[in-house]
Amino acid sequence: MSSEFGKLLKISVFGQSHGRAIGVNIDGLPAGEAIDMEELNAFMARRKPGKSPLSTARKEADTPVFLSGVENGVTCGFPLCAVIENSDQHSSDYNNLRDTPRPGHADYTAAVRWEGHADMRGGGHFSGRLTAPLCIAGGIARQILARRGIFVGAHLAAVAGIEDTPFPLHPTAELFDAVAAKAFPVLDDGAGERMQSAILTARQEGDSVGGIIECAVIGLPAGLGTPMFDGMENRLAAALFGIPAVKGVEFGAGFAAAALRGSENNDPFVMEDGRVAAAANRAGGILGGITTGMPVTFRLAVKPTPSISRPQRTVSLSRKEEAELVIHGRHDPCIAHRAVPVAEAVAAAVVLDVLLEHHKI
Amino acid sequence: MSSEFGKLLKISVFGQSHGRAIGVNIDGLPAGEAIDMEELNAFMARRKPGKSPLSTARKEADTPVFLSGVENGVTCGFPLCAVIENSDQHSSDYNNLRDTPRPGHADYTAAVRWEGHADMRGGGHFSGRLTAPLCIAGGIARQILARRGIFVGAHLAAVAGIEDTPFPLHPTAELFDAVAAKAFPVLDDGAGERMQSAILTARQEGDSVGGIIECAVIGLPAGLGTPMFDGMENRLAAALFGIPAVKGVEFGAGFAAAALRGSENNDPFVMEDGRVAAAANRAGGILGGITTGMPVTFRLAVKPTPSISRPQRTVSLSRKEEAELVIHGRHDPCIAHRAVPVAEAVAAAVVLDVLLEHHKI
Amino acid sequence: MSSEFGKLLKISVFGQSHGRAIGVNIDGLPAGEAIDMEELNAFMARRKPGKSPLSTARKEADTPVFLSGVENGVTCGFPLCAVIENSDQHSSDYNNLRDTPRPGHADYTAAVRWEGHADMRGGGHFSGRLTAPLCIAGGIARQILARRGIFVGAHLAAVAGIEDTPFPLHPTAELFDAVAAKAFPVLDDGAGERMQSAILTARQEGDSVGGIIECAVIGLPAGLGTPMFDGMENRLAAALFGIPAVKGVEFGAGFAAAALRGSENNDPFVMEDGRVAAAANRAGGILGGITTGMPVTFRLAVKPTPSISRPQRTVSLSRKEEAELVIHGRHDPCIAHRAVPVAEAVAAAVVLDVLLEHHKI
Amino acid sequence: MSSEFGKLLKISVFGQSHGRAIGVNIDGLPAGEAIDMEELNAFMARRKPGKSPLSTARKEADTPVFLSGVENGVTCGFPLCAVIENSDQHSSDYNNLRDTPRPGHADYTAAVRWEGHADMRGGGHFSGRLTAPLCIAGGIARQILARRGIFVGAHLAAVAGIEDTPFPLHPTAELFDAVAAKAFPVLDDGAGERMQSAILTARQEGDSVGGIIECAVIGLPAGLGTPMFDGMENRLAAALFGIPAVKGVEFGAGFAAAALRGSENNDPFVMEDGRVAAAANRAGGILGGITTGMPVTFRLAVKPTPSISRPQRTVSLSRKEEAELVIHGRHDPCIAHRAVPVAEAVAAAVVLDVLLEHHKI
Repeated sequence: MSSEFGKLLKISVFGQSHGRAIGVNIDGLPAGEAIDMEELNAFMARRKPGKSPLSTARKEADTPVFLSGVENGVTCGFPLCAVIENSDQHSSDYNNLRDTPRPGHADYTAAVRWEGHADMRGGGHFSGRLTAPLCIAGGIARQILARRGIFVGAHLAAVAGIEDTPFPLHPTAELFDAVAAKAFPVLDDGAGERMQSAILTARQEGDSVGGIIECAVIGLPAGLGTPMFDGMENRLAAALFGIPAVKGVEFGAGFAAAALRGSENNDPFVMEDGRVAAAANRAGGILGGITTGMPVTFRLAVKPTPSISRPQRTVSLSRKEEAELVIHGRHDPCIAHRAVPVAEAVAAAVVLDVLLEHHKI
Repeated sequence: MSSEFGKLLKISVFGQSHGRAIGVNIDGLPAGEAIDMEELNAFMARRKPGKSPLSTARKEADTPVFLSGVENGVTCGFPLCAVIENSDQHSSDYNNLRDTPRPGHADYTAAVRWEGHADMRGGGHFSGRLTAPLCIAGGIARQILARRGIFVGAHLAAVAGIEDTPFPLHPTAELFDAVAAKAFPVLDDGAGERMQSAILTARQEGDSVGGIIECAVIGLPAGLGTPMFDGMENRLAAALFGIPAVKGVEFGAGFAAAALRGSENNDPFVMEDGRVAAAANRAGGILGGITTGMPVTFRLAVKPTPSISRPQRTVSLSRKEEAELVIHGRHDPCIAHRAVPVAEAVAAAVVLDVLLEHHKI
Repeated sequence: MSSEFGKLLKISVFGQSHGRAIGVNIDGLPAGEAIDMEELNAFMARRKPGKSPLSTARKEADTPVFLSGVENGVTCGFPLCAVIENSDQHSSDYNNLRDTPRPGHADYTAAVRWEGHADMRGGGHFSGRLTAPLCIAGGIARQILARRGIFVGAHLAAVAGIEDTPFPLHPTAELFDAVAAKAFPVLDDGAGERMQSAILTARQEGDSVGGIIECAVIGLPAGLGTPMFDGMENRLAAALFGIPAVKGVEFGAGFAAAALRGSENNDPFVMEDGRVAAAANRAGGILGGITTGMPVTFRLAVKPTPSISRPQRTVSLSRKEEAELVIHGRHDPCIAHRAVPVAEAVAAAVVLDVLLEHHKI
Repeated sequence: MSSEFGKLLKISVFGQSHGRAIGVNIDGLPAGEAIDMEELNAFMARRKPGKSPLSTARKEADTPVFLSGVENGVTCGFPLCAVIENSDQHSSDYNNLRDTPRPGHADYTAAVRWEGHADMRGGGHFSGRLTAPLCIAGGIARQILARRGIFVGAHLAAVAGIEDTPFPLHPTAELFDAVAAKAFPVLDDGAGERMQSAILTARQEGDSVGGIIECAVIGLPAGLGTPMFDGMENRLAAALFGIPAVKGVEFGAGFAAAALRGSENNDPFVMEDGRVAAAANRAGGILGGITTGMPVTFRLAVKPTPSISRPQRTVSLSRKEEAELVIHGRHDPCIAHRAVPVAEAVAAAVVLDVLLEHHKI
């Protein structure tokens, strides 16, 4: 196991979907940092389900309780452990899944990996619910970064093939706030409407859709990160692939760069206000694994939710024969929109870790 | 710094393009493994430049010398350090780059990161030449894996937007060997011809092109990998982004999955010869970070070589003003084809590390 | 920070003495291991204070609550987080310590390290109370080891210069149980009586005493551990120095070996029941960092409790002048006897981690 | 394996005694640090054998060659790999050791650990010769520290039970230099004479002796280190136990503290020149794992060299019966004096790593 990431700032997630509690232990936070609980709760509310037909009807309280690491609302330098009690569990919904693994889920791989001992009710430790503790850690990191003029924002770049407008070359904190305040996190509300329609249609058809998240970090100085295996891309990717359902990570132009020529893809250096900048940002703010001072930008591919209500082909592990599976229970027809703040959370945590290593905080 | 990756098998790369030597220290190899030098040299020859107009004219000897860790051609359980002496360096080609950083290169970020102290002649530690030591490590790992029936193969999936046929659902070691034996590593030689034309055209126009590499690992058992941040995807991605010019990593259907429905993207489980398998492999052989027993497949986006001979816009760091840069010297008009064995090397090393952790070797 | 140790089995401790709760997150436990709560509680009771005049009057409930990682009393392969709620805190006792750091305590170093933000009430995260979560982790590890015939035992080798009989060359699980069952963990009860008298005398005189713990691990196969910096000695020492008040660690003959000749210190190899063994164990069961198959033995130096009621010289941090300090509150006149199960716990956790790495579990 | 230590400064040692070369890869050195080769060679000469009858007659060139990481004598921010070619090997001396393991050596444990594959000629990777690369790394670290007013010194505190004067409460760089300049590194030359006699006597009798090294680091600020498992004691001990033959590590009063009372062992805080200091240093400059600003002091127990020419009892691994062993070849009758600079080297490397993490360099 390692449900932990980070180097000087270690973030360890624990809990199962239907266990007693989920939570996170954060070791290495700087001391003396106030935690604005109202802001943290508002951040966490962005990933909460149960708000509309676009996501599962499961209600989550998601109010973090700090067991340690905070005194009078300020970090005290010691490990911060925060927990969220579980409730509203319908474990019986999952009874038939032990033998017939859900396609696209970790049921089968976990059964092999832990030889039947894994507590997979509700997806167990693989559940999207485990992204709530990630948001606690990332929400705190965001506040620490914001005090230093570093901001993390994200939006839904695509759902079911319907594309949102990309971030501009220089996104601003105000733009991030504006997207975060929306019920559906897109820049172009028209595109957002079409995406929501696609989600609802999929839901009605017992199906689900995937999406793409674009994330940006602004305010970072040049010179952060280390070749070859400890660069910004390595560290961000290693953590981002920990978000359930993420199957691809690309920086800047990413896969599109593979079809460009060097003369098209190279970002010309320019002077802006006496500082070195770039006239474009196909590098995603990273060259040689090290920040250029331009916004760090990346995109995540989020696969369609594997839990769908349509009958699916699977196997019976006990009988060793093929079987049909119908999944009951409450499921998200799309998780990409709920994963938007999770992407921000993970990025914020990684960036804070890198800044701590580089003596910038 | 950390030019090292791995958990139980640690691979540390050292050297600068124009320094005395480059090399790799490999700590954690199993003992008693024979190293077939002929096979290793053949593997390394696949990434060598100087063979055709498709790559730089720079000649590299690339013959590894083992300083430790091997006795009578067999690993002895102690750290294996291998070095390659540098030669054929044209350092003077790089003299003007200290002040006018090359767009798309790490010149600028390294100048900020190490405040002018980095030895960036020939790209320094960021040079593609540093992938030779990676191939030593990966070439040894491949031999150890092959003895256990585990094989790693890759091909050029695209260059300049021209696409090769993808790997079949169940690629074989024979297919991997056949691609590896080709001068240009594609499945469809017609597509390969068009790719090579595109590379040569770009070269004639003082430009460069990018590409996409598809890689597959076959023979892995189900159950390898660990959620949430230590899964196969996390570990592969963290290492793969260490290959210079890689800007994106996706597993299975990757970004394409984001436009599919759950009913399309979920791989149905089926029984094959009494074993659980899948009727498709859009998961890339990984669910919840854990192997399914299907081939592990991923794709890498390789950006076009940033070194192009066309004039480019940059800045003078000393004069703090914009400037035009013309890069002299010998450069690859495309590095994607030479990166194919490097992708295999990194994948092999990561997979060996995971297998060691899972007690499979 | 890193309040975490371990490689494949990561043990992260959190909490402050007077915070809401203390606890431990254990990532990497094998799945399918039953946890005997009665046995765990009995193990934890051995370090509990409040039982006699030999230790502080502070009462601790110390009943761990498992938030995750356990289903129906069996480990489920996911991170196990266990917490103990705090209670019975007399925070006011510590009010004067913020300005006048206690000699021998971490008050001053923490004030510098975290610039006044550390929550040091009751010793904060440095409190001996944080050894309770270590005992949860170690208590579980002990159960897993015992099922494989590996046992960890310890006794008080000395208090205030009064020495207990050392462990015999081949201690047994029965001997470990017998010592563990005693109210005062010594082999020689006469020595134990004299030790207890020394503790009570020190208490009456407003003072404290230190001690030495001898620990042994039996049942380990030969061949565990890795040179040079990942051997049994390195890993045990790194973790054992995390026990508050430990100022020295020695293996086998340890410092006494420095006064011996090679002919006296070398343990002759002998054959016993067809297996290689040693006629003596001055190596402490470890050669070159690797287990020999003999018992792994080590000794810990535990300094006298720094909290004493006698007036002491210190400084006022605010007034930058020397001051006299009188510490109120409830304190242990000796902590060495309470640290005996803690040493076992840490050793068990490290040994389990090494065994997991070596594919023995 | 892990022949590596360090967190932000990673030091990886490779090589076997009778292999082609030994060396070290240092990843994470600050850039722009000049390396004074004369000083480095002088430092390394302190551990060299072949100088007197006190050590083995084996000659070692020990001139490090830098393969990478240095440009024009200055660190360039990239991994620094340095190697020393092996020569003057008498491999035939070791032929009979494969079957009859030497008592006190790693022959047996390595045979089990690597199932006969380990290259153990001359002690293989366990040889004291591997401390030469450690001295390269530590020698460079010492130079970097000295520029910041931080100095590391050590002396032989005891040999064969004969004790040197301990360091004073505030040792100085001048004192360190004076001891380092001596052929036999003691403060009290009379004690040194008696120690040398004891070594020569042991040699004449075909035997060996052990010793104790005292080391001090001065000039460190207060506040360095992190509880619970990442403190100065944990990190120093983990690395120091990597020095062959070290069987004990204690900080400050160490094991002697266990026999003191709290009122005797607590170091009173005092004001000195307006700064907080301590009137004594039984804490060894460390409280709660964090530096106090007083000298960091520790002692190492070095066991007597296991290679002695007297006949010893061992076993034949092939015949599974007891046997007598006579070791031929050239051996040190004592290695404690040669280990003095090695202790300094390891301490310097660890301290530099901690300072890098704490943003002090």
